[in-house]
Amino acid sequence: MPSYKAPLRDINFCIKELFDYKDIQALPGYEDMGEDLVDAVLTEAARICEDVLAPINQSGDLEGCRWENGQVFTPKGIKEAYNTFVEGSWTSLAADPAYGGQGLPESIGLMTEEMICGANTSFSLYPGLTRGASILLHTHGSDELKDRYLPKMINGTWGGTMCLTESHCGTDLGLLRTKAEPQGDGSYLVTGTKIFISSGEHDLTDNIIHFVLAKTPDAPAGIKGVSLFVVPKIWVNDDGSLGDTNGVTCASIEHKMGIRASATCVMNFENAKGYLVGKLFHGVSNMFAMMNAERLGVGNQGLGVAEVAYQNALAYARDRLQGRALTGVKFPEKPADPITVHPDVRRMLLTMKAYNEGNRMVGAWIARALDVSHKEKDPVKKQEAEDLVQLMTPVVKAFFTDCGYDVANMAMQVLGGHGYIKEYGLEQFARDARISQIYEGTNGVQALDFVGRKLPANTGRYLRQFFHPVLVFIEENKDNAALAEMIPLLVKAVTRLQQATSYLAVSALRNPDEAGAASVDYLRMFALVTHAYLWAKAVKIAAPKVSGEEGLFYESKLETARFFYTKLLPQTSSLLATIMAGAKPLMSMKEEGFGPF
Amino acid sequence: MPSYKAPLRDINFCIKELFDYKDIQALPGYEDMGEDLVDAVLTEAARICEDVLAPINQSGDLEGCRWENGQVFTPKGIKEAYNTFVEGSWTSLAADPAYGGQGLPESIGLMTEEMICGANTSFSLYPGLTRGASILLHTHGSDELKDRYLPKMINGTWGGTMCLTESHCGTDLGLLRTKAEPQGDGSYLVTGTKIFISSGEHDLTDNIIHFVLAKTPDAPAGIKGVSLFVVPKIWVNDDGSLGDTNGVTCASIEHKMGIRASATCVMNFENAKGYLVGKLFHGVSNMFAMMNAERLGVGNQGLGVAEVAYQNALAYARDRLQGRALTGVKFPEKPADPITVHPDVRRMLLTMKAYNEGNRMVGAWIARALDVSHKEKDPVKKQEAEDLVQLMTPVVKAFFTDCGYDVANMAMQVLGGHGYIKEYGLEQFARDARISQIYEGTNGVQALDFVGRKLPANTGRYLRQFFHPVLVFIEENKDNAALAEMIPLLVKAVTRLQQATSYLAVSALRNPDEAGAASVDYLRMFALVTHAYLWAKAVKIAAPKVSGEEGLFYESKLETARFFYTKLLPQTSSLLATIMAGAKPLMSMKEEGFGPF
Repeated sequence: MPSYKAPLRDINFCIKELFDYKDIQALPGYEDMGEDLVDAVLTEAARICEDVLAPINQSGDLEGCRWENGQVFTPKGIKEAYNTFVEGSWTSLAADPAYGGQGLPESIGLMTEEMICGANTSFSLYPGLTRGASILLHTHGSDELKDRYLPKMINGTWGGTMCLTESHCGTDLGLLRTKAEPQGDGSYLVTGTKIFISSGEHDLTDNIIHFVLAKTPDAPAGIKGVSLFVVPKIWVNDDGSLGDTNGVTCASIEHKMGIRASATCVMNFENAKGYLVGKLFHGVSNMFAMMNAERLGVGNQGLGVAEVAYQNALAYARDRLQGRALTGVKFPEKPADPITVHPDVRRMLLTMKAYNEGNRMVGAWIARALDVSHKEKDPVKKQEAEDLVQLMTPVVKAFFTDCGYDVANMAMQVLGGHGYIKEYGLEQFARDARISQIYEGTNGVQALDFVGRKLPANTGRYLRQFFHPVLVFIEENKDNAALAEMIPLLVKAVTRLQQATSYLAVSALRNPDEAGAASVDYLRMFALVTHAYLWAKAVKIAAPKVSGEEGLFYESKLETARFFYTKLLPQTSSLLATIMAGAKPLMSMKEEGFGPF
Repeated sequence: MPSYKAPLRDINFCIKELFDYKDIQALPGYEDMGEDLVDAVLTEAARICEDVLAPINQSGDLEGCRWENGQVFTPKGIKEAYNTFVEGSWTSLAADPAYGGQGLPESIGLMTEEMICGANTSFSLYPGLTRGASILLHTHGSDELKDRYLPKMINGTWGGTMCLTESHCGTDLGLLRTKAEPQGDGSYLVTGTKIFISSGEHDLTDNIIHFVLAKTPDAPAGIKGVSLFVVPKIWVNDDGSLGDTNGVTCASIEHKMGIRASATCVMNFENAKGYLVGKLFHGVSNMFAMMNAERLGVGNQGLGVAEVAYQNALAYARDRLQGRALTGVKFPEKPADPITVHPDVRRMLLTMKAYNEGNRMVGAWIARALDVSHKEKDPVKKQEAEDLVQLMTPVVKAFFTDCGYDVANMAMQVLGGHGYIKEYGLEQFARDARISQIYEGTNGVQALDFVGRKLPANTGRYLRQFFHPVLVFIEENKDNAALAEMIPLLVKAVTRLQQATSYLAVSALRNPDEAGAASVDYLRMFALVTHAYLWAKAVKIAAPKVSGEEGLFYESKLETARFFYTKLLPQTSSLLATIMAGAKPLMSMKEEGFGPF
């Protein structure tokens, strides 16, 4: 069975060394959240992830969820783990204290999210969806609705979902058919069928609060006519007690490639009573309040799975004796050398390590900006942080999850045939990681959001929050001896990114297909340059510490940074070429020309 | 349920237009194998693949194989399909007529192999392993053994396996522990446990003939002490009748990520009677006779799955209405445009199409060389063809299967959430494709074979069979107007490949880790340049025909070639950079530096 160990040392590096946690603690509301508290939270989170969630990850996959007459049964152990999770108050970490939350910084919440996903991705979706739903309600709900639903969602007594997709529409929500009929008393009756609803039905909580996109009878066509409704599985009386069951049923669950312990439901709403959340016709934009938080969460899911996959591939590689080093026997006392002596095995391990640690740095940076955007009093700093979060959210979602799948696959490859069988658990990581590239907006949709919306927004204002610190860093460190190898490569990569950005700014205005054609390559290039910037920052911090007591850790940072710069960053060269090749090679094929022949 | 249509038009393009089939027909033994016969064979093969094998692909995955008290039961429909397959003589296509084979060219056999794998990868492994085993016996067995076993293996009455891997050794077969004790009468008693044995036990054939690597008591240590034995499941009497069961039992089957209708067995040999095949201590090198054929076959497996994945993604994309084209509404009469209008969906479809058609061209080239290497009388031409096959076998195996998985994953991505659930069948393609990167030598091992053995062999002689035709083609076509855009890009890519080759030739002599460090990137670069060469050849043929009656097909070739040159070939630029960065970034990390932290 695979094992999981929370990467606490590296998380601490990101929170406290790469960035200064004291800046977060200085924000209004976080004054009491000192480093000791953070340490205690992370250590306890690690414990529950390692001891409670990881041990039921493989069994949950093998058993899967079961649907029976509208009821959904989670695999053995999930309910007990959920209860332990709730008792430990892990559902309320970063939530508003006004509704029973603990008010911890989001950046701490997102680091625990990585651990939970690494330990048990399927499990993470039960509290994860509730968290997203409660953020949505917190942002857009009336005080009455918040008072009624939020405390029990935040303490984990009730679950939450987001019901967007219908069988004929996912990305294009303007096409949806679910109806909401006003009843004159402020309530609505919701009727329609939603698919792919994570945690839509299960046996973990007393009630499930659905957030449903639907159209009122007089709604304008398309996306501008969509509104958001809160529809509980069981009606909640004015005194907060549970009333009758509402017209909400689970018609079936999906049989999926992975995350098999997570219930993915077809939900039927039939005259189900609900209330409007936020303004009429603002459903889609309001839903995005939740989607952004979810997208950062899904990014962390990619990172979590990648981390556990790396750990298990590494453990296998160290144990597996096979062949001899190309440069001669390294362990003459053993029947063969461990496969860690082979350059290509090292290439795979280092690729995994570099992407994982790089993404963890990116995650720490953006989560920190999220905290600043929420709590900072200075409106300029607040806006700058908000701009950075807006810009980077699609990058975090898409790049972390692309890496998640690639890393899980590389980990399988390290195990060879043993990676392909269920016993070792590696193939599960790949299957579980795969969904994160698809849901909460496919990675293609993320890239289009990035290039089509985030880049041009406010005449490119968001971008400044990225390029400014990078260019300042280069200027300030151009004579730093520890960075002598890296700064020229960073400059080259940044220059390529600027070149691609300028090209896009001009070409996409002329022809919107240019943005679409470049989107995926551009997002990847952007992510790689972000990694390069943060690896350089990491080297600056690590270099003076290599002779200290944690020398191994810091030296490992330097080696990983060198690997990243020489073996992964060069991807920017071919990405630039494909971006500059433009949209024509994609668009000129006639529709019938695709064959098949 | 997904569907499959054999890509006959494109196969015919590769066999008859890109290369001249008449050259193959001119080889001794193939005089009667005219184009009409080839057409008939391919058309009939397409029919059985589309009508018999494809319809049981999804059900076979859902049901999986079942083990019960040592017996293995294949999923519903597999046995009936196997019987139909045998009745149609599909097991004997390219086999030697002296033993009941039909003696068709290998190049035709490999094209049908692609179709079989595309229709039903799991199924393909039953006849596929038997075919490999019969090639092994044909090449190294005594006349007596051949007479006894070959006819029934070739006609499909009996199955065959290759038993190499043990739990502690896969790549490094020198470590194996299975013993073979000579009995003084020419027979041996084989004892040991083999794992990951495809088709090791099943309910399709009367007998299964195992080819087992084992060590005799006095054998030298390591790989030089390994011998090959033929060990039937049921003893075969001198008159060919079946005797007693032999000491061969199936201890269990693996539960795998994919190819779930293929039985992957743990095989126990306990004093199982067998005979030596080939010379004592030549087991591993003799096994490679089979491995090379198998590796080309596994390459075709990657291509087959990629083709069916492409077809189903394309069908979905044409059907799925979602959003509007970025440049304005394309189908105002529909509620939304089909997603084929979106540049990024086109990017995915074109990537799939380009890799698939490119690999089909490579496959046709190498299969053709295989035929020449077997049948050509002129020793120089024969050797040249043999050199090309030796060189390209690891490229076909690794690149086709890497593309197979990437294409299957891209196809899933086109379907979004529908790609992740079992219903549409796309996720099965990805799971089935994944194994082909691992078995018959992982793709890392292929790359090491390529760089470490094939490049330096006979002071680089094999390479000439690649570079010579490419450079001649460039010279002959440098003024061809149809190729005006491509030739400079081809020259650039070839130059990069030559640069990487020279670098490796020098650096690997100095330090063998340099070969290992560059191997995977170099193999990929080589494959991309091979594609570029063949796409240029294809354009030369297609360009004059775009105004003819099959104009759409030829124009599609031109568009796909342009896409390949501008959007995929640029990968060579970053691959060159990572190759030239050398081994140091991989080897300098201390073993403990990998953490995890």
